[in-house]
Amino acid sequence: MTTSTALLIADLVGVAVFAASGASAAVAKRLDLFGVVFVGFVAALGGGIFRDLVVDEVPPLAFADWRYATAAALTAAAVFWLHPQLARLRTTVLVLDAAGLALFTVTGTLKALDAHVPPFGACVIGMLSGIGGGLGRDLLTGEIPVVLRREIYAVAAFAGAVMVAVLHGAGQVGPLPLAVAAVLIFVLRLVALRRRWAVPVATLRPPRTGDPGAGPRW
Amino acid sequence: MTTSTALLIADLVGVAVFAASGASAAVAKRLDLFGVVFVGFVAALGGGIFRDLVVDEVPPLAFADWRYATAAALTAAAVFWLHPQLARLRTTVLVLDAAGLALFTVTGTLKALDAHVPPFGACVIGMLSGIGGGLGRDLLTGEIPVVLRREIYAVAAFAGAVMVAVLHGAGQVGPLPLAVAAVLIFVLRLVALRRRWAVPVATLRPPRTGDPGAGPRW
Amino acid sequence: MTTSTALLIADLVGVAVFAASGASAAVAKRLDLFGVVFVGFVAALGGGIFRDLVVDEVPPLAFADWRYATAAALTAAAVFWLHPQLARLRTTVLVLDAAGLALFTVTGTLKALDAHVPPFGACVIGMLSGIGGGLGRDLLTGEIPVVLRREIYAVAAFAGAVMVAVLHGAGQVGPLPLAVAAVLIFVLRLVALRRRWAVPVATLRPPRTGDPGAGPRW
Repeated sequence: MTTSTALLIADLVGVAVFAASGASAAVAKRLDLFGVVFVGFVAALGGGIFRDLVVDEVPPLAFADWRYATAAALTAAAVFWLHPQLARLRTTVLVLDAAGLALFTVTGTLKALDAHVPPFGACVIGMLSGIGGGLGRDLLTGEIPVVLRREIYAVAAFAGAVMVAVLHGAGQVGPLPLAVAAVLIFVLRLVALRRRWAVPVATLRPPRTGDPGAGPRW
Repeated sequence: MTTSTALLIADLVGVAVFAASGASAAVAKRLDLFGVVFVGFVAALGGGIFRDLVVDEVPPLAFADWRYATAAALTAAAVFWLHPQLARLRTTVLVLDAAGLALFTVTGTLKALDAHVPPFGACVIGMLSGIGGGLGRDLLTGEIPVVLRREIYAVAAFAGAVMVAVLHGAGQVGPLPLAVAAVLIFVLRLVALRRRWAVPVATLRPPRTGDPGAGPRW
Repeated sequence: MTTSTALLIADLVGVAVFAASGASAAVAKRLDLFGVVFVGFVAALGGGIFRDLVVDEVPPLAFADWRYATAAALTAAAVFWLHPQLARLRTTVLVLDAAGLALFTVTGTLKALDAHVPPFGACVIGMLSGIGGGLGRDLLTGEIPVVLRREIYAVAAFAGAVMVAVLHGAGQVGPLPLAVAAVLIFVLRLVALRRRWAVPVATLRPPRTGDPGAGPRW
C-alpha cells in the first residue's frame, strides 16, 4: 500500500466518521432520509469545501472525487437504519471523531500552506477544515454550534495546526512529522474528553429588564 | 424569440418564484421591508451563488447581471405589500416553485458539467443549485430547512440531475433532452405533492435522561 | 502617516469594533472563550471573506494578512474578560459600529468595482461586506439576523454603496469623494438610531390553525 493510498483511506475514514455524527444529529431531529444524508454530507465535507474555496481549488475535492460524497452518503444512510445499534458504540465514535478532527486539520493546514497562505491564516483555515463540518451540521439542525460552547475541541485543532505551520517553516513536511502533529491533536482531544477539560465561560450579569432580542446587542 | 431569450425569461421566472417563497417566509417572521427583500434575494439567488463559487465563475451571475437581483428584489417587495392576496394563489405558487426547482437544477448540473466537474459531483452541485436558496431562506428565518424534513423535493431534483448527467455523457445536450429532464423533476415534484409521497423518517427511541443539548451527540 | 497606513488603521478599527459586537453576543449566549473569539472573528471578517470569494481574491484578506485575524481575536478575548465594563460604553460602541459599517461598505463596493463587477452587483457586494459579519454572528448564536428585523442599517449601507458606484462611474475615486460616501452611511445610520427611524414591517393576518412549521409556507 503506497502512502497516497494510505492517506486516501484515512481521509475516507474521517469522512465516514463525520458523516455519522451529522446523520445522528439529523436522526435526533426527526429529519427524513434525505435530510439525514444531506446533514451527513455537510458534516463530512463542509469543512473541506470551505477550505478549497478559500485556497481556490475548484471544483472542491468533495465534488471532484466521487468517492468522498459516496462515502459520506453511504455512511449517513447506514446510520439512518442502524442508529439504535450505534448508540452502544459511543466511545468508539468519540475516538474516531478525534481522529477525523486530527486528520482534517493537518491536511487542511498543509493544503493552505502549499497554496501560499501565510502561516497564521493557514492555521485558521486548517482549524476550520477540522471544525467546519460540525458547524454546518449544527446550523442545519437549528443548534448553536457545540464546538463554540464547551470542551477542548477547536483549541486542540488549532494547536496541531500551529505545529504543522512550524514544521512546514522548518521544511519538515514528511509523513512522520505530520503524523506527530495529528497525534498531538488526537491526544489533546481524548485527554480533554477524559478529564473533562473545558475552555472557560465568562461570568454573566443578569440581563437588564426588557426583551434582550429587541435591543441592540453589545 | 431566440432560445437564449427564452432561457433568460425562464430563469427570471424561477428567480421571481423563489424570491416570492423567501419573501413570504420573511413576512411570516415579521421581518422589515429590507429583511423581506434580503431573504427573497437569498432564496432566489443563494443556490446560484453557491454554484458559481464552486465552479469558479466569478463574480457569480447574481452579481454580474443586474436583471437577476432586480427581479428578486422587485418580487420580494411586491410580496411585502400584496401577501394577503398571495395566500389565495397557493396552488399556483406551488406549481411555479416546482418549475423553478426543475429549471435551476437542470441549468446548475449542466453548468457544472461544462466546467469539467465529474458527473456525480455535478449532480450534487445541480441539486444544490435547486435547493440551496430554500436552505438559505430557512437558515435566515431560524427554521430547520424544510427540504430536510419532508416530502419529495431534493430527491426529485437529484433524479433530474442524474438524467442531465447521463444525457451529457451521451452528447445529448440540446434543448429537447434537457427539457425532458426538467419535466421529469417538475412532474415528480407535483405527483409527490398530490399523492403526499414522502421520504421515510427514522424511528426514534426516547432520549435518555439528561439535557440532550449538553451531551455529545452521536 | 501615508494614506495606505491610515486606511489600514481605519480597517483594523472596523475589525475590532465588529469583533467586539460578535464577542458580546457570544458572551450573552454563554459560549466559552473559544466560542467568543470565533464569533468575534466571524463578525469582524465574515463579510470580507464573502466579498473576497465572490470577486475571486483568494486567499481572502482575512487569511492572507495576519493582522486582521489577530485584531479580531485580541478584541474578542478582551471583551470576554471586560464585558461588564463594556456595557457602560454602549453609545461609543454604537458610533464605532456605524463607522465600521461605513468603512467596510465603501471599501467592499470599491473592491468589487475594481474587479469589474457591474455597478448594481458591486453595490450589493459592498452592502454585504458591511452587514455580512453581523449576519454570521447572528446565525452562529441562533438568532434571526437583527439586520433583517429593524432600523435603518443595511439601507444606509446600500445608499452609500450606490454613491460609491456613481462616483466610480464619474472617475471620482480619490480619498475625498470616498470619504463623503462613508460619511453619508455613518450619518444616515446615526440619525436613524437617534430618531428611531425604521423600515416598515408588513401587517400580518393571524396564521390559520395548524402547525405553521409543518405546512408548506407561501
